[in-house]
Amino acid sequence: MAVQTVASTTDSAKTVDLGPAAALSCRECGHRVPLGPVFACEECFGPLEIAYDFSAYDAEELRKQIEAGPANIWRYAPLLPVPADVADKPNLNPGWTKLVKADNLARELGVTGGLYVKDDSGNPTHSFKDRVVAQALEAARAFGFTTLSCSSTGNLAGAVGAAAARAGFRSCVFIPHDLEQGKIVMAAVYGGDLVGIEGNYDDVNRFCSELIGDPAGEGWGFVNVNLRPYYAEGSKTLAYEICEQLGWQLPDQIVVPIASGSQLTKIDKGLQELIKLGLVEDKPYKIFGAQAEGCSPVSTAFKAGQDVVRPQKPNTIAKSLAIGNPADGPYVLDIARRTGGSVEDVNDEQVVDAIKILARTEGIFAETAGGVTVGVTKKLIENGVLDPTKTTVVLNTGDGLKTLDAVAGTGLTATIRPNLDSFREAGLA
Amino acid sequence: MAVQTVASTTDSAKTVDLGPAAALSCRECGHRVPLGPVFACEECFGPLEIAYDFSAYDAEELRKQIEAGPANIWRYAPLLPVPADVADKPNLNPGWTKLVKADNLARELGVTGGLYVKDDSGNPTHSFKDRVVAQALEAARAFGFTTLSCSSTGNLAGAVGAAAARAGFRSCVFIPHDLEQGKIVMAAVYGGDLVGIEGNYDDVNRFCSELIGDPAGEGWGFVNVNLRPYYAEGSKTLAYEICEQLGWQLPDQIVVPIASGSQLTKIDKGLQELIKLGLVEDKPYKIFGAQAEGCSPVSTAFKAGQDVVRPQKPNTIAKSLAIGNPADGPYVLDIARRTGGSVEDVNDEQVVDAIKILARTEGIFAETAGGVTVGVTKKLIENGVLDPTKTTVVLNTGDGLKTLDAVAGTGLTATIRPNLDSFREAGLA
Repeated sequence: MAVQTVASTTDSAKTVDLGPAAALSCRECGHRVPLGPVFACEECFGPLEIAYDFSAYDAEELRKQIEAGPANIWRYAPLLPVPADVADKPNLNPGWTKLVKADNLARELGVTGGLYVKDDSGNPTHSFKDRVVAQALEAARAFGFTTLSCSSTGNLAGAVGAAAARAGFRSCVFIPHDLEQGKIVMAAVYGGDLVGIEGNYDDVNRFCSELIGDPAGEGWGFVNVNLRPYYAEGSKTLAYEICEQLGWQLPDQIVVPIASGSQLTKIDKGLQELIKLGLVEDKPYKIFGAQAEGCSPVSTAFKAGQDVVRPQKPNTIAKSLAIGNPADGPYVLDIARRTGGSVEDVNDEQVVDAIKILARTEGIFAETAGGVTVGVTKKLIENGVLDPTKTTVVLNTGDGLKTLDAVAGTGLTATIRPNLDSFREAGLA
Repeated sequence: MAVQTVASTTDSAKTVDLGPAAALSCRECGHRVPLGPVFACEECFGPLEIAYDFSAYDAEELRKQIEAGPANIWRYAPLLPVPADVADKPNLNPGWTKLVKADNLARELGVTGGLYVKDDSGNPTHSFKDRVVAQALEAARAFGFTTLSCSSTGNLAGAVGAAAARAGFRSCVFIPHDLEQGKIVMAAVYGGDLVGIEGNYDDVNRFCSELIGDPAGEGWGFVNVNLRPYYAEGSKTLAYEICEQLGWQLPDQIVVPIASGSQLTKIDKGLQELIKLGLVEDKPYKIFGAQAEGCSPVSTAFKAGQDVVRPQKPNTIAKSLAIGNPADGPYVLDIARRTGGSVEDVNDEQVVDAIKILARTEGIFAETAGGVTVGVTKKLIENGVLDPTKTTVVLNTGDGLKTLDAVAGTGLTATIRPNLDSFREAGLA
């Protein structure tokens, strides 16, 4: 794909090659600006997102091109804000994770229409964050940044550290200084700078915003701040993969975890793109959002029939979803209502139970976020909200090895002496 | 592939469909017996291994069939002891993990001929054990077993628990009762029976052998005991994948970790099969074995020019390789000498350094076993034993999340207050 000059509303037109990405567009007022490391609309402070030019695509040619592509997210490069030769650049090549036909879990939950788990624990650093960081990395290359940064309390720190290491970027990741030692190790091992901030996660975020506006932050790409419009697009690849793995079909129902809400909105965007491009047949689908009860601002608003999401102080073991003031909450409410889905929450005990059910039935050890989606799926079926006769996809976005504490109560069935009598006494034969 | 009647040397010929597997053959005396859940030769007590009938295969047709197969080990079903319809049965579908072109690591180690990391942390339970357990599972199905079992101190317990859960088998795994809590949780979460034995790993193994001979163990498939001939074949898939991912070419040099030594011998077997089948061009290749200094019986024998491997009492952080009396040690010595490779070891400090080098250069967080192979590769280059101008593949067989303790010293670069002055003082700008 040739380098394109982006039409600009300002005098300083920039030349960047981010493939089909044509401009940034305000989600609220539609104001367009050239591609750049900005995230808020200069007119109304609304969130900017990528506007694409897909006009030249032919459905059959595009489908063939995708199917002949690599077994990672770059098979969808024509639909992402990345240059056409992205697969040749050093990166972690995430994605194309397994869509597991979960027949045992389906029997347990009473699903007859086909139940699938999209298992993103198979990504390089074992969470879906590798998908979004990979997009931010390409934007960072395009804008000439040399340091990759973020604020994080877990999965994102490792994903940024690993991606930067392989791509030859410096990384500098900011975390609350009192994180558990295990999480610090998982992020520090990649050798970038890992800076503990004396304060909580809000303090870390505030400091990062300050750093972006300061000369000290020049040349720094904060994947989830000034590169956020690019970063967020990575979640579209979950929608693309699910549909392609279903044989280029939309699922009837999909259950997605909600942290900031960005992932759910981008999955919807991805499904809409596939319909418009003619890669899947248009038919109704329902998107369900899943939260932990201890951080359920969106499900609370959904159940109350409100459009406004009231912030909460998180208190749940599902820490990767513990965003009390989710930026995309109102958009999630729109999508759940528009598609006929809903937003539901489960308590920590139900999260742990669901982790164990998934492990016991399918051999998949999920992070707490996966416990939230499986638990919510179970609850939605019991409440008659989710239709068990329809094709349903449940997302597991992380790996149980990262949240071992959640199932720390799991242990030995029995302890015996090393002889057959002791074995028989324990009733295990 | 039709069900085959296996030619038998005994009266009790059995009919099982394990694809191209024709019989069991003694590695020492060549005595053949029908396929069954046995592992030692009735004539000489030598180890039994699978003998195949590949006579009907045409190289070009086989290559096309493989390339059209699924993105997991079952693309190689025609070369494995499994039925032709194996991909339709519920299992974890391991394999087809990334072969990462490690240009940054190559620069660091001075390799100019192409350096690759075969990263088996991408398997479903994040170690290469998923490959071997998947073979044992199919043998267990064929022999009518209903319980899958093993003795283990780590990776294998989780791999068996997960595979059994998905396949609908009962699992009963035996471990030393005083394992670290984290390892117990990783194995227990799949819901099978997990039995702690009051004793050390040797006691656990002795008890399992006793159980196999007792009526209480009837119907039990011990993946690494009575199903070992089938189980071990899973390691061949590492050789197949490496060659296919290199464009159907043999690597010049390959560095493999040694625990029992089985993996290394089966990788050699896999490479030899590809040559004989005409799937790769025949040319010399060298196999290098890697051990930790604290458990280095094979490298000690290699360096001393001996054929006999003297047992050692293991004392190393590389616990997944800590087998002091490796059953396949003599075969490993043969292969290293025959191919012009060698066997080397590194100390625990070098293991930790190598884990950090791999993470820092390629964004791959390896288990201690991966630290051993990368560390040995570095040492072999420095000693002039491994040729840096040749194509080299290094195996990472596990995931750093499972051996976090090894890099527990890794930590924060700095701790600062949430303001720019404090940031500047720390010298991070």
